[in-house]
Amino acid sequence: MKISDSGVSVAVVGATGAVGVEMLAVLEQRTFPVRELKLLASGRSAGKTMKFAGRDVTLEALDERSLAGVELALFSAGSGISKQFAPAAAKRGTVVVDNSSAFRMDPGVALVVPEINPQAIPGNAGKGAGGGCIIANPNCSAIIMALPLTPLHKTWGIERVVVSTYQAASGAGAQAMEELRSQTLDVLEGRPAKPKVFHEPYAFNLFSHNAAVNALSGMNGEEEKMIAETRKIWGDDEVKIAPTCVRVPVMRAHAQSINVTLASPATLDQVREAIASAAGVKLLDDRAGNLFPTPLKASGQDDVLVGRLREDLSQTPARFTHGSPTLGFEMFIAGDQLRKGAALNAVQIAELVFAGRF
Amino acid sequence: MKISDSGVSVAVVGATGAVGVEMLAVLEQRTFPVRELKLLASGRSAGKTMKFAGRDVTLEALDERSLAGVELALFSAGSGISKQFAPAAAKRGTVVVDNSSAFRMDPGVALVVPEINPQAIPGNAGKGAGGGCIIANPNCSAIIMALPLTPLHKTWGIERVVVSTYQAASGAGAQAMEELRSQTLDVLEGRPAKPKVFHEPYAFNLFSHNAAVNALSGMNGEEEKMIAETRKIWGDDEVKIAPTCVRVPVMRAHAQSINVTLASPATLDQVREAIASAAGVKLLDDRAGNLFPTPLKASGQDDVLVGRLREDLSQTPARFTHGSPTLGFEMFIAGDQLRKGAALNAVQIAELVFAGRF
Repeated sequence: MKISDSGVSVAVVGATGAVGVEMLAVLEQRTFPVRELKLLASGRSAGKTMKFAGRDVTLEALDERSLAGVELALFSAGSGISKQFAPAAAKRGTVVVDNSSAFRMDPGVALVVPEINPQAIPGNAGKGAGGGCIIANPNCSAIIMALPLTPLHKTWGIERVVVSTYQAASGAGAQAMEELRSQTLDVLEGRPAKPKVFHEPYAFNLFSHNAAVNALSGMNGEEEKMIAETRKIWGDDEVKIAPTCVRVPVMRAHAQSINVTLASPATLDQVREAIASAAGVKLLDDRAGNLFPTPLKASGQDDVLVGRLREDLSQTPARFTHGSPTLGFEMFIAGDQLRKGAALNAVQIAELVFAGRF
Repeated sequence: MKISDSGVSVAVVGATGAVGVEMLAVLEQRTFPVRELKLLASGRSAGKTMKFAGRDVTLEALDERSLAGVELALFSAGSGISKQFAPAAAKRGTVVVDNSSAFRMDPGVALVVPEINPQAIPGNAGKGAGGGCIIANPNCSAIIMALPLTPLHKTWGIERVVVSTYQAASGAGAQAMEELRSQTLDVLEGRPAKPKVFHEPYAFNLFSHNAAVNALSGMNGEEEKMIAETRKIWGDDEVKIAPTCVRVPVMRAHAQSINVTLASPATLDQVREAIASAAGVKLLDDRAGNLFPTPLKASGQDDVLVGRLREDLSQTPARFTHGSPTLGFEMFIAGDQLRKGAALNAVQIAELVFAGRF
């Protein structure tokens, strides 16, 4: 559907999903210059409408011809759909920003967090006939962790990270969010929990992340992504990361407990200042008020919230004085999984690609 | 009230609280030899009745004379009540097992997890006129963490632990559990969340533990307890522990993500075998089925469940082969906060003290 006289021809693939809905909201809120908008989904949803900029846009079923003439395609319909449709579209000139994991670790595909490695975006992306390409949107937990750690990595180097996640339902899609809502109501009203999306009951419960577990290493797929993708975003294959990924009964923002070992010493004030002045993060660190990041505070926010910033006394010499340089720090963070963890990051990539068209 | 002709004269102080209720259930389930039972609470509850072994026991208001002639007093009514009544009772011959934090770090008071340091219980406890004493029940998070780590600490030594907790409502008492229930129903039915017990909204949310935060170190009280109490239980002031304590919207079992550095290398099989054969823990570690400990599985169970047991590749050399000896291991555990984290551990202490009376 035509939206305005100028701007970019945009398609959202997987428009009805939790991330697709958020992509539309973010495009609108950030007044991304949309000339034409195509909303693509499964045949089941074709013919229904969704609102964009006050207009009813009719959903179309995705097929081989859907993306002809589309300049920007925001994919969020799972790895299978991305593998099937993204390469041909890129070959025909479309810039695909892919939220699935299909191409993230492909050496020929950029994996981008705009605040961290915008230089990874191919120079000719979106420019003329040969400007089609796939740009991968990283895993939500990797994006959220990388934002507050990047200023530390740049200034002092990061030797090792031990991270435990508290991940929301939204990372598994709209059905998972609905399962949390309806199952919790069932339990509160005395009915049994009936897990469908997840393999464990979700109401008033939590469980090790639902991604498959590697039989040899014991790591699950989400943990493997956090390691591999952070290394690729930073261009640093040496950094050591020990993640444990856990699903908690929260709707749409991920939290993380992070323990860092720097490569060279810093003071707490220096670390705090480095994080405070970094893009995409916001300090919320009130020890006296016990006010720190929570998923609810992060929901709907663009920035990753950072708090509980402190020296890790388990990594200091015995007679350590608070405020002295040290290698170990801890923090607790929260970021909106649907926004910075997915839709916002994808639209920010598109903004960089089509910066000349604003 | 008289319960039987022989056994121990028992009082439960704080009988109406979440832990008090669980203490009665555990005494009954384990057929602790109760001769007389006094249920003590605030004046507000006096005159009401609670069931024990099929009998209605009338609640009495706690005062200076309540514990006269009582051989075992299980305290769980907060530090203030313990400080006010426990020392005098102990002096008069009562064995006080205190679930509060009032005396845990007192050098003259034993801090006991029966599977770990039963030898810390004073030899004359419960024996004759001079057998009165206070024995402290450790913090729930400390108990739950110590059980699976003790076999590792004994065999290889533990150098450092990085632990992030996922703590249930029950740790803050029955009112906190009710707040989680009613606030979640409010939110599901479109009413605003009205936090009362906690300083943050709890429905579909999580937050850094509500214990006060030390202005200098940035650690909260719960984290300080996990460090100090684990060191006292192990009699090892050198072990390094870096805890982050978080409250999650779960009713009554705590989970923990634990990253361990051993002092000397072990293989994964050796570590698994050491945990499997330890008392008070149970392995639940099915990589193929993605079945691991959860709070719901741990609820109502005596054992701490242990899973996600794996080598920590961030602590191994680059060419590490799975199964080789290493220093780094990770695990995810869950334990019932009200049982092993509180009531069960207290009753187990009492069983050791009065073993001769069974």
